[in-house]
Amino acid sequence: MDSQSAIKPYVIGLDLGGTNSVFGIVDSRGDIKATTAIKTQGYDHVDDYVAASIEALQIIIDQVGGIDKIKAMGIGAPNSNYYTGTIEKAPNIVWAKQTVPLAKLFSDKLGIPVAITNDANAAAIGEMAYGVARGMKNFIVITLGTGVGSGIVVNGQLVYGSDGLAGELGHVTMVRENGRSCGCGRTGCLEAYCSATGVARTAREMLQSSDEPSLLREMDPEAITSLDVSLAAGRGDALAHRVFDFTGRMLGEACADFATFCSPEAFIFFGGLTKAGDLLMRPLREAYDAHVMNVFKGKAKFLLSGLDGSSAAVLGASAIGWDIQK
Amino acid sequence: MDSQSAIKPYVIGLDLGGTNSVFGIVDSRGDIKATTAIKTQGYDHVDDYVAASIEALQIIIDQVGGIDKIKAMGIGAPNSNYYTGTIEKAPNIVWAKQTVPLAKLFSDKLGIPVAITNDANAAAIGEMAYGVARGMKNFIVITLGTGVGSGIVVNGQLVYGSDGLAGELGHVTMVRENGRSCGCGRTGCLEAYCSATGVARTAREMLQSSDEPSLLREMDPEAITSLDVSLAAGRGDALAHRVFDFTGRMLGEACADFATFCSPEAFIFFGGLTKAGDLLMRPLREAYDAHVMNVFKGKAKFLLSGLDGSSAAVLGASAIGWDIQK
Repeated sequence: MDSQSAIKPYVIGLDLGGTNSVFGIVDSRGDIKATTAIKTQGYDHVDDYVAASIEALQIIIDQVGGIDKIKAMGIGAPNSNYYTGTIEKAPNIVWAKQTVPLAKLFSDKLGIPVAITNDANAAAIGEMAYGVARGMKNFIVITLGTGVGSGIVVNGQLVYGSDGLAGELGHVTMVRENGRSCGCGRTGCLEAYCSATGVARTAREMLQSSDEPSLLREMDPEAITSLDVSLAAGRGDALAHRVFDFTGRMLGEACADFATFCSPEAFIFFGGLTKAGDLLMRPLREAYDAHVMNVFKGKAKFLLSGLDGSSAAVLGASAIGWDIQK
Repeated sequence: MDSQSAIKPYVIGLDLGGTNSVFGIVDSRGDIKATTAIKTQGYDHVDDYVAASIEALQIIIDQVGGIDKIKAMGIGAPNSNYYTGTIEKAPNIVWAKQTVPLAKLFSDKLGIPVAITNDANAAAIGEMAYGVARGMKNFIVITLGTGVGSGIVVNGQLVYGSDGLAGELGHVTMVRENGRSCGCGRTGCLEAYCSATGVARTAREMLQSSDEPSLLREMDPEAITSLDVSLAAGRGDALAHRVFDFTGRMLGEACADFATFCSPEAFIFFGGLTKAGDLLMRPLREAYDAHVMNVFKGKAKFLLSGLDGSSAAVLGASAIGWDIQK
């Protein structure tokens, strides 16, 4: 910690989701000192969203001793670009259907530096600042939620690429022939198989393609979630186990490819699907060991996020604030 | 250029191949001021190889005004590790079947800093120092020779990864079922299809699987090289064209995956197979455009090396020398 952060001991984190916007004021150890939240929707214009945010923020800023105690703000948000500080055409946010300069709008109001990136990049910086990647210079965070995201750190720096949008490992092509359709408009992407929705889809496909008994047959197929598959596997359901074997193996093969890129010290998994634990992680590690190049074998660690819990996304976002002035 | 490089205007580059070791003394513009070479083989011990190298080098060092004019030395060599300065078990070099600390051995004899990396990483640094990547901070060099190698630059720095061995994009898995065997001991790697030897293999497979007339049928199938395929395509041979279509398309699909990682400003192709020109590059670009994520579409440049020619490998190696003291 430098002398600056002793004088300004806090950063603001904003986890900007499709439904809620959660703010936290965080110290350098990752302790959350104060939180507040507003609805993300219900504003026609980004200026109204920012004004409502500032109004809510002012209360918790005062709680920690005023804006002079705050070094910077980090925002984790969908479709956001670190280089330009903008959210670019986020389809699910009414006031961001066009490109909006959200970082600048907050910075102008608060008088502190503000940076923005997507949630997976925020998670990666969060793991480096407060989580299991402290001290690591080369690692990959893979977020397993509704989609599959990634945040990649090389030489201690987040990989933003030439345009600010790098780190989309959920969209490498894993199945080149007759692959599943993906939300990105293409087919065969890792995300189409290994997201929470991909797991549910795999379960439906396995149920349809056989008459094998399964606890999941008691449910409406369209209502099956990855949590249901996980619970069924926990009760010994063989088909549910095979769903996680399939998912873990594909993730392991994908990670073997990722190793050729940046030979990470660790792969760190983040998000709802990681609650499946060894159901997912055992076949993942086995497939990795079976497929990775010999020179990389046995080197990478496979870790679960050190930021898990309800505040993980806010912590990740706040960590971008520490990163700005490096 | 800093004041140091005005006083010490040169670096030494060593292109250490399986047959020959070529040395060059190079200035900051990439002009080669003097060259020499020795055989790589014929020494039982690495000390003998280094002694013979120094003897040959001393003559060209004297030509440029002595060792005081030389800032550093860079070595491009197979199986080499930037972090440890070693060649690790190079199967084709008698004196390097065990791990040898080649950078330190040269540094001790010459009294200047010495760094070592593989030829693809050397090519990437060479493109940044003297070639088509001048001014770029994010790009990927792909070497298409006997094998497929890669050198990846992110945020202006080469990606060495946690162990010094990152950047092996020739060994991402492109064919997951019944893939060709690869020299790395695995199957389905990009290199097994898109190296010069992979091109020849594709030609043999296409010749075997049909009776289609082809100029290549006049040859002993086992003797066909990628150059023969290129020459046949140049004479209008349809089968030879399809070999390059297949190769270019697979490279384009692979590059679409690589874009998700680091969203490079450019893909730069280097090595013998690039002589095929548009035979290879047209299907490559078409497949990339068809497969890359929408957010990256139309952004990356596809370039041929700016270091082409007989001295490219020495230039690449020398550029590591400039990079050491950054």
